[in-house]
Amino acid sequence: MKSWIIVIGNEILIGRVLDTNSNWIAKKLTELGIKVERILVIPDEEETIVDVLKEACRHADIIISTGGLGPTYDDITSEALAKALNQKWVVNKEALNMVKQRLKRLNLELNEYRIKMAKMPEKAKPLENKVGVAPGIYVEYNNIKIFALPGVPSEMKHIYLNHVEKILKRIFKRKYYREDKIRVKGYTESTLAPILNKIVTKYPDVYVKSHPLGVVDGKPVIDIVVASYGNDEGTLKNKNITIINEIRKRLDESKKT
Amino acid sequence: MKSWIIVIGNEILIGRVLDTNSNWIAKKLTELGIKVERILVIPDEEETIVDVLKEACRHADIIISTGGLGPTYDDITSEALAKALNQKWVVNKEALNMVKQRLKRLNLELNEYRIKMAKMPEKAKPLENKVGVAPGIYVEYNNIKIFALPGVPSEMKHIYLNHVEKILKRIFKRKYYREDKIRVKGYTESTLAPILNKIVTKYPDVYVKSHPLGVVDGKPVIDIVVASYGNDEGTLKNKNITIINEIRKRLDESKKT
Repeated sequence: MKSWIIVIGNEILIGRVLDTNSNWIAKKLTELGIKVERILVIPDEEETIVDVLKEACRHADIIISTGGLGPTYDDITSEALAKALNQKWVVNKEALNMVKQRLKRLNLELNEYRIKMAKMPEKAKPLENKVGVAPGIYVEYNNIKIFALPGVPSEMKHIYLNHVEKILKRIFKRKYYREDKIRVKGYTESTLAPILNKIVTKYPDVYVKSHPLGVVDGKPVIDIVVASYGNDEGTLKNKNITIINEIRKRLDESKKT
Repeated sequence: MKSWIIVIGNEILIGRVLDTNSNWIAKKLTELGIKVERILVIPDEEETIVDVLKEACRHADIIISTGGLGPTYDDITSEALAKALNQKWVVNKEALNMVKQRLKRLNLELNEYRIKMAKMPEKAKPLENKVGVAPGIYVEYNNIKIFALPGVPSEMKHIYLNHVEKILKRIFKRKYYREDKIRVKGYTESTLAPILNKIVTKYPDVYVKSHPLGVVDGKPVIDIVVASYGNDEGTLKNKNITIINEIRKRLDESKKT
């Protein structure tokens, strides 16, 4: 399963807001064994959103966007999504009820800008938002699962945890993701490079990465992370442990020479 | 001037590392009046890096990448850049001297993995890295300015501030970016929507955005930000102030009704 995350909002492209949504979603998808292949940050421009959504549909099985679902003029994700999928953009009755209920709670009246938050591609299902007003959007297209979530992190997380994650777990056979690591001291990244090179050549489906953590007592400290995806938790664990042991052995040998 | 920022690294796509580089670079480019049109996060996969660099060359005047310049097997940005630009990937003498000097300081010897950090597209210029070892890369292609910087934030910032920013300021006539804001209380985003709608229709080249800040004393607080780019600082200031005053007037009128 391959996924793309699309972050929509000029405020991120001008550096005013640090996007933390994509990092949070990437972690969550990785936990489910779903590979994140690309994260894109794009402006609140209809043509760009339509183009990027179409491109994502050519590459990903799962697409999650954040941002652009609110009531203001530059919130155009929902309309752009309808255009990208060649669907009509219509008021969704279920979504309108959700919006009305939220407005009632907040003592606000319905107006055209608030009705806009209930408009969706005609085949979409609304995902209830109990934190803000705008519902999330779930729509299937050529077997691709597309979710459009609000940009406000608390609303995004609420809808992800209560709806998106449940849908993904129901649809996809769970895959597992497992990370193991060794912390080494006194080796530099370029000393480790030939060792890790041999490992990844031998185990091409495993992700091995060195993370320098700085210098302690005058010696570099590095985490070597071994990560893999798979169908069975036990197999993954055995595989990672085998690799970790092999790295340890090669490290010991490199000291001896 | 349009720019793309390309962040290279699996560690970001699995959610292990929060990318703050693109936010920092976006702020810096915005300060120079350079528009950031897209931020992409892509994996350490040669084919993807080559494809995305080629796509960026079709859309941007300035491309800045971070990540993938180190000595390990998955650091492949430089080689992928050479492929994308159809240039040979060769040891750059100036870069090799830089790497040797840095290694000497760190009491490390040259080996094939460290020589790799001095390999660049044949027409590239190295950008000295006084924080880490791997130099940055600057290369021009069809008048597009391409910079490849390390992923470690301290190294990236050092090279940006000491080299990239100077090159950009020298090459491009400075444009200005100016933001002004009003903080309003007691209006919701959907109450403000019709007012801001009128403003952006009247001033299409100005970026107007509402940022909800939460609820104080039971009332919503929102920042309305007016931002514009231009050739002259004074004109920008006048334009923003005119717009801010118009928003204030429309807000007052909306209260009266």
